[in-house]
Amino acid sequence: MKFVTDSFPVSTNAHNQMLDISDKVRNAVEKSGISNGSVLVFCPHTTAAITINENADPDVTHDVLLTLSSLIPHNNAGYQHSEGNSDAHTKSSLVGCSETVIIKDNRLQLGTWQGIYFCEFDGPRKRTVNLQITGL
Amino acid sequence: MKFVTDSFPVSTNAHNQMLDISDKVRNAVEKSGISNGSVLVFCPHTTAAITINENADPDVTHDVLLTLSSLIPHNNAGYQHSEGNSDAHTKSSLVGCSETVIIKDNRLQLGTWQGIYFCEFDGPRKRTVNLQITGL
Amino acid sequence: MKFVTDSFPVSTNAHNQMLDISDKVRNAVEKSGISNGSVLVFCPHTTAAITINENADPDVTHDVLLTLSSLIPHNNAGYQHSEGNSDAHTKSSLVGCSETVIIKDNRLQLGTWQGIYFCEFDGPRKRTVNLQITGL
Repeated sequence: MKFVTDSFPVSTNAHNQMLDISDKVRNAVEKSGISNGSVLVFCPHTTAAITINENADPDVTHDVLLTLSSLIPHNNAGYQHSEGNSDAHTKSSLVGCSETVIIKDNRLQLGTWQGIYFCEFDGPRKRTVNLQITGL
Repeated sequence: MKFVTDSFPVSTNAHNQMLDISDKVRNAVEKSGISNGSVLVFCPHTTAAITINENADPDVTHDVLLTLSSLIPHNNAGYQHSEGNSDAHTKSSLVGCSETVIIKDNRLQLGTWQGIYFCEFDGPRKRTVNLQITGL
Repeated sequence: MKFVTDSFPVSTNAHNQMLDISDKVRNAVEKSGISNGSVLVFCPHTTAAITINENADPDVTHDVLLTLSSLIPHNNAGYQHSEGNSDAHTKSSLVGCSETVIIKDNRLQLGTWQGIYFCEFDGPRKRTVNLQITGL
């Protein structure tokens, strides 16, 4: 039974962006030598998030980001936080800062259309993704 | 220490639906022989999700689904994804594609009113739920 | 390899509130003697949630709660649940009932600005947080 921690950098280039990090997670799992277990993909930032969604048609992430920005206004007379990124903090808590994916027989057990995304809500920025790979 | 993976089919019969899958998860945990650990309940679809909410009054799931559909419009002039289910993809990322539940002394450690739900946002469909049961 | 379960009480004093429980989680991890692994922070209630967000400026949690309450109305002519807290149930499913945090070399691997929050959406109440600490 092993616990392997790892991390990789992510550079975002838009204010709101969903970046497919599936291959980076896959590479880290392969490097860990763990063939059965799970990988926790964790975002250590409070204006970003991790999600799993469709990776076939890039229009999906466009529409998800559009809907989030329609729902959660960038400006609101009631906001008190002085940095002007309260919308990004809210998106972060709604989408969530981690996902856990099953590893079975050396493969991430994702659905056919699923990819793992780093969600930037206050970019562009340099970010980090932390991983913990657990298993045998 | 064991990692047991399992899965079961789910058939939904409405466009939006929350199906209580607690007993199916419980049966899989019992079958695994793992009495202390955790179970990851994972949805391998990108227009569906897993959540935990009240299982006593079915009006709760009605109201949760009503609110999600009020918030996230099925039609939006800005949507680019041609399949017409961008709302379902957004709901999937907001609710999240997995939940982890503690197993203690052969029992799922859920609160008194908690049930585990498969959330369909683009049904009716045939779906699958993946499980990973980890522990001793 | 150990699985340690623990729990602690939380008292909320507002209808909507985000309470920083990072130190309580840290103390439980220290008490467990597990120095590498992870901790699952689980909310056994259906009108509350667990999230991770900024713990430096208390205005952030104010703004997150304000946005959630703007999005999800307390009253809605279509609600069927008779207890009048359907908004709280919806917030619970959107924010989610658990978070998992990596433990590395005796420390929670949280980002610089991250704290773990118990989110009350139907308070004030007496609540419980369940933990499972897994590792070596």
